[in-house]
Amino acid sequence: MNSFSIGVDLGGTNLRIAAFTRAQERLESIAIPTRLEAGKYAVVQDMCDAIHEIAKKLRGSLELVGVGVGSPGPLQLPSGKLYHLPNFPGWDGFELKVEIEKVLGMPVIIENDANAAALAEFLHGSGKQRGVDSLCMLTLGTGVGNGIILNRRVWHGMLGMAGEAGHGPLEYDGAPCGCGGRGCLEQYASATAVSRMAKETAEAGQSEAIAHILATRGTVSARRVAQLADAGDEGARQVYRTVGKFLGLSLSQLVNTLNLPLYVVGGGLASSWHLFAPTMFAVLLRDSYVYRLTAPRDELDINPLCTHIVPALLGSESGLLGAAMLPFAEREMAVALPS
Amino acid sequence: MNSFSIGVDLGGTNLRIAAFTRAQERLESIAIPTRLEAGKYAVVQDMCDAIHEIAKKLRGSLELVGVGVGSPGPLQLPSGKLYHLPNFPGWDGFELKVEIEKVLGMPVIIENDANAAALAEFLHGSGKQRGVDSLCMLTLGTGVGNGIILNRRVWHGMLGMAGEAGHGPLEYDGAPCGCGGRGCLEQYASATAVSRMAKETAEAGQSEAIAHILATRGTVSARRVAQLADAGDEGARQVYRTVGKFLGLSLSQLVNTLNLPLYVVGGGLASSWHLFAPTMFAVLLRDSYVYRLTAPRDELDINPLCTHIVPALLGSESGLLGAAMLPFAEREMAVALPS
Repeated sequence: MNSFSIGVDLGGTNLRIAAFTRAQERLESIAIPTRLEAGKYAVVQDMCDAIHEIAKKLRGSLELVGVGVGSPGPLQLPSGKLYHLPNFPGWDGFELKVEIEKVLGMPVIIENDANAAALAEFLHGSGKQRGVDSLCMLTLGTGVGNGIILNRRVWHGMLGMAGEAGHGPLEYDGAPCGCGGRGCLEQYASATAVSRMAKETAEAGQSEAIAHILATRGTVSARRVAQLADAGDEGARQVYRTVGKFLGLSLSQLVNTLNLPLYVVGGGLASSWHLFAPTMFAVLLRDSYVYRLTAPRDELDINPLCTHIVPALLGSESGLLGAAMLPFAEREMAVALPS
Repeated sequence: MNSFSIGVDLGGTNLRIAAFTRAQERLESIAIPTRLEAGKYAVVQDMCDAIHEIAKKLRGSLELVGVGVGSPGPLQLPSGKLYHLPNFPGWDGFELKVEIEKVLGMPVIIENDANAAALAEFLHGSGKQRGVDSLCMLTLGTGVGNGIILNRRVWHGMLGMAGEAGHGPLEYDGAPCGCGGRGCLEQYASATAVSRMAKETAEAGQSEAIAHILATRGTVSARRVAQLADAGDEGARQVYRTVGKFLGLSLSQLVNTLNLPLYVVGGGLASSWHLFAPTMFAVLLRDSYVYRLTAPRDELDINPLCTHIVPALLGSESGLLGAAMLPFAEREMAVALPS
């Protein structure tokens, strides 16, 4: 009997549930708003109702391998206990895994959403394309997520908190971050950061176009800043060069520390690759000694002993797909390795 | 029959060769100057002569498990080919492993010297004391070395170049580094950096004591700066606070990325722990989100689920001991893991 698994992407706005085969074929999916205002138990109930609904449709003809849930971090793994999540008021200390299992009546695997995205990219995206065993992914969205795959497994560290390069400080006393630190990558390379830096650019009198948008709408999106940059607005272009500079500094640290064959940049902001990548690579070539020794000749050079830094191949649903891959990955590891 | 192995520490000034048992008992040792002026083949010959001399003395009563060589990096592993080593003119591209094996007539294991030091600290130092499976070590000497142990093995990355956090950029457009980059940890947390920063402090009129030493001797050592700091010289104290600030920034990156239970600071400069550690921990607490969530209550808290950052337990010969442990570690791994 063919098998499927169910993945859940628990976002602050949307709750997405979908069934996939191991070969990335999407069988069923449900997307509903995350009812944060109704409280955490209501969200867990919604999630479990959707999982049951999908499982009921498919069971009989297909075997359910398991359920994987991608959650915003920080969370403790494998216990699945949440810490303080900035966008989930009242969830601090919530035993997410325990509570889902109680309602669902079956075990689930919990994973940090950025780790789930890295697993998806590893199994079905650029990792598969290049045949690597290890990769590091940065997901540039509202915040900056980070997931690390070492020797075909998610690297969790001691408590599941590995892969928080989004909160690595890159400038002492730099921009204050929601995490409590200062100068984190997230403050320079997220969609939120692009909006903030665009505002600063307008306030410094460096972009009339951005100033005009702010005057009418009060805010400017990362996408709009990218459009202005593409249209030649120098202030908007400078914002994306700043994104590239800090991505270059963060990747310099990651390349020097881990020496992996592949680093992947995903998330919504990755669509502006052409705007930030030139600066990012310039910083890497100057400031990362290991990158300089291992850089590919050009974008077409696929030498497996070079350090490749590429945009993600999978789109915005990589976290959902990765969550669904967790039960398959666990089963494959159990087969591949002795207990 | 009991067994021993031979370790080699190839330094720019001294070449040290010693035989150890697995239990860290030193059986024989030879220390000679590294004759760089005589050329690389002469150095390899000196090394192999000393290895043969020690092996001859011990063989018969003890079994030789193997030979491990710690070399300055960057080098390619496991091939043991050197890249450009700043203090070894003419060694660029040298096939160190191949050439040693040719003269010695037996296989050797080559390792980056900072990785060897991390292995020693793991097997016989603070790693053993705390019973961890993983650790990250920074060795603050003339430069800053870095070695990472994940799940009881040295993490080499793709080409043996992992663990180069000493050259991770911490300040964009910061102090130029011998590696070609700018603002590397090595420029703020090595003995060389302390001397340079002390000179800058004197030039800025912030320490008459340092200025006096520079006027008479032309240079000031990291040890002398530490003595002045201990005697209350404010300029000298500030230099070590700067060491702590950049160590704190680098460790913030490493803690956030790897989430290991133990980070070890070794090398000669670690003896000034009391001068830099307060600033280092202050930066970690403010700027590393994962450290803040996992910091021990105090220095006596040995909770294994906390992030511990400690001075190395082993002294200046950890690189030599670690090199000698390489053949034992390889044998134990071969027994522990299926091929």
